[in-house]
Amino acid sequence: FTKLMNNVTDFTDKVKKLGKDDPRRITHSIKVGVTLALVSLLYYFSPVYGGFGSSTMWAILTVVVVFEFSVGATLGKGLNRAIATFLAGALGVGAHHLATLAGTEGEPILLGLFVFLLAAVASFSRFFPGIKARYDYGVLIFILTFSLVSVSGYREDKIIRLALHRFSTIIIGGLSCVVISIFVFPVWAGEDLHKLISLNIEKLGDFLQAFGGEYFENVDKDGLIPKDDKKTFLHLHGYKTILNSKTAEESFANFASWEPPHGRFGYRHPWKQYLKIGASTRHCAYRIEALSNCINNSQTQPLEFKKIVQKGCMEMSIESGKALKELSIAIKTMKHIPDSVLTHLKNSISAADNLKSSLRTATLENANIFDLIPAAKVTTLLIEVIGCIGNIVDSVNELSHLAKFKGAETTATLLDKPKPQLHREETLKSITVETTNHGNATHAVITVCALSTALESGILEDPLIL
Amino acid sequence: FTKLMNNVTDFTDKVKKLGKDDPRRITHSIKVGVTLALVSLLYYFSPVYGGFGSSTMWAILTVVVVFEFSVGATLGKGLNRAIATFLAGALGVGAHHLATLAGTEGEPILLGLFVFLLAAVASFSRFFPGIKARYDYGVLIFILTFSLVSVSGYREDKIIRLALHRFSTIIIGGLSCVVISIFVFPVWAGEDLHKLISLNIEKLGDFLQAFGGEYFENVDKDGLIPKDDKKTFLHLHGYKTILNSKTAEESFANFASWEPPHGRFGYRHPWKQYLKIGASTRHCAYRIEALSNCINNSQTQPLEFKKIVQKGCMEMSIESGKALKELSIAIKTMKHIPDSVLTHLKNSISAADNLKSSLRTATLENANIFDLIPAAKVTTLLIEVIGCIGNIVDSVNELSHLAKFKGAETTATLLDKPKPQLHREETLKSITVETTNHGNATHAVITVCALSTALESGILEDPLIL
Repeated sequence: FTKLMNNVTDFTDKVKKLGKDDPRRITHSIKVGVTLALVSLLYYFSPVYGGFGSSTMWAILTVVVVFEFSVGATLGKGLNRAIATFLAGALGVGAHHLATLAGTEGEPILLGLFVFLLAAVASFSRFFPGIKARYDYGVLIFILTFSLVSVSGYREDKIIRLALHRFSTIIIGGLSCVVISIFVFPVWAGEDLHKLISLNIEKLGDFLQAFGGEYFENVDKDGLIPKDDKKTFLHLHGYKTILNSKTAEESFANFASWEPPHGRFGYRHPWKQYLKIGASTRHCAYRIEALSNCINNSQTQPLEFKKIVQKGCMEMSIESGKALKELSIAIKTMKHIPDSVLTHLKNSISAADNLKSSLRTATLENANIFDLIPAAKVTTLLIEVIGCIGNIVDSVNELSHLAKFKGAETTATLLDKPKPQLHREETLKSITVETTNHGNATHAVITVCALSTALESGILEDPLIL
Repeated sequence: FTKLMNNVTDFTDKVKKLGKDDPRRITHSIKVGVTLALVSLLYYFSPVYGGFGSSTMWAILTVVVVFEFSVGATLGKGLNRAIATFLAGALGVGAHHLATLAGTEGEPILLGLFVFLLAAVASFSRFFPGIKARYDYGVLIFILTFSLVSVSGYREDKIIRLALHRFSTIIIGGLSCVVISIFVFPVWAGEDLHKLISLNIEKLGDFLQAFGGEYFENVDKDGLIPKDDKKTFLHLHGYKTILNSKTAEESFANFASWEPPHGRFGYRHPWKQYLKIGASTRHCAYRIEALSNCINNSQTQPLEFKKIVQKGCMEMSIESGKALKELSIAIKTMKHIPDSVLTHLKNSISAADNLKSSLRTATLENANIFDLIPAAKVTTLLIEVIGCIGNIVDSVNELSHLAKFKGAETTATLLDKPKPQLHREETLKSITVETTNHGNATHAVITVCALSTALESGILEDPLIL
């Protein structure tokens, strides 16, 4: 009996957790319940009061199938259903008319052939990735409606009336879903995507800020690190969800593209650009996965060489972490990339540069090669991570211009200002990039281009460093 | 006009490619068409011959919605639909009965309340990951049927007859889908999963076999590598699909769990174990992603240190690649892990060991530290990769025993044979592992355990190497 009680409390805990993690789940469930109860009562009264008759069933069916968690998903399914029903209904009536011309013997044969051909072709079309992603449900409804309408063995005028009844009840069901999902505690897939992308960048920043301390801690203290620090653990492992977030991002972006303008997101918001940012974030997460491996055995590694690179690596990881976290805030608040992001990124690059030149001159006499390797690996990985961050900044910058984030236009006036922080060669390179790719490039674009060019040419491809 | 023609040829090319990539897509489309045409004609004749009447519509609806690409998906949906319809139908009749007791005024209120409660609770249950994965469709149909049955404003005896009609037509539709998908050119999700897992391991092997040559080629030739070698390119980039294959693997495994025994896959085939292999394969792919970065700038890297590690690294990468490829063949043919896999893995480990000891003694006087770093990084990454391969072999070994692959039982007789290849300490460790974890462990298990123990203790955790 106690086992049963345990199971019950386990279950209620799970339910509570699901609700707490995302309270919108509870409101969504209530919304579905209310919509369905309302539409059901319509069905309940209709046989009494005449009207659409048993076609009202389709309103219930539509509500159950179309009502999804986010507005975009609901709208996408509703539109798919409405358009597919309309097209297939018209085609079905046509097919039925054509088949009756063939006489009583030819009719079933011709009808069977029509249904076969249409179902086969439509099923095959579902294998096209583009159709699969956006119109899969529409194709399904198309096949369904066509078969139902074309083979219904009624007289033609009755069919048309039936088709119209069904269509209007589907519209009623679909509209109630759409209206309720938009106006009652709406869940916007676009906002979820926006938050997910900025959260993922924040997670990378958390890792990088925590990494330096975690890896080099024992250099100073020479003791065991207290491992029960829950926050550090979260910071060091939060990035793992990014590795597999591609599917979630893609479905959010798909749903978001169905959504009307809402809140801070205007008409034709560049949702696809979020996928690009997601891809470069994921690329960075792969590097960080390699970096996180280095922490595991960091305590048993020799200290000599670690001490040499410590300052540079700490600075690289902390500065690049700060850059990412400020970038994440900029996305969250929909402001153009602030100068501080670029400053932190530049700091981390110059830390890398300094480390590079100090290592170029340093020759350890009689050094054991194997003592160098672990810390050397961390150094090169950190430099790679900084390169990836340059890509993330570039793609966020593109988003900022496409979506006209606050401040994205005004920075154009800064174009003619001198850029003393950059070296001559890098400035030249950045201007080449600008003239070829970004006709109306702003100061920020140039700086970013210069930074990533500096990364690519100055560090990543430099034969002496990597 | 030529533009239109180009579009048409583009389109036909795409269709041809889709069909060629997987001819089962064509047979699937034809199967759907045939099933639907047959069931539609049933509907066409039924109003003429009486019988189920307009309930036959539900047979068409079921076919359209339930017929999926693989047997597992079709069966899963069919069972979900049948069971949910039955349960919800019974519950709906009960709710209807209860509501009529409340009198004409209370009836609609009570019915609305019932529908609201059930829909809200059921919608919330869809957020449980376990239900979402396997019973999402069933819950949907449950809500749908309950609402339809409970609110239908008919007399009770008519409702029961209607519910039975609908249920039997749904069974007819569902059964035709299941029968045709199982007996006419069946597509088994389980087989797809099996193939995907072995293909992914093969891709990793391809990369490792090609990597050594690609990275060290310029050491001998000192020239540019001809980059138009299409096969090498494929080998070096094939692994990228593994990084995002988690979703595909999970849905295959979910579908496969619905499938009856078929072909080489018996009753209760351990599909979940495939997900474990998939996870360790993906872990290995993350390392390989880091390794593949090293190739890009390999030509501009200094040669001195590269020459020192070349032999060891080449051996590590080629031998571990061979191990993976033979492992992949063993999975494909469902044979127990052959000794050759272990031999290759051992060779790569001893190559790592040799490299380790040769590097321990080698001290480059006046060496520039930065000249060492790139090749040193490749060395450590390769060693990490070998560690990951140990995990893959372990999980495949588990599968081999769970699924009783050919030879998995007979190897038990080899248990008492001496194992001269392993060092005393490693053997001891492996025996400890065996007695604690694998009661009926076989020779192969011990060897594998010993190997991964050797990897973990001897190389990966050795303070002097990583």
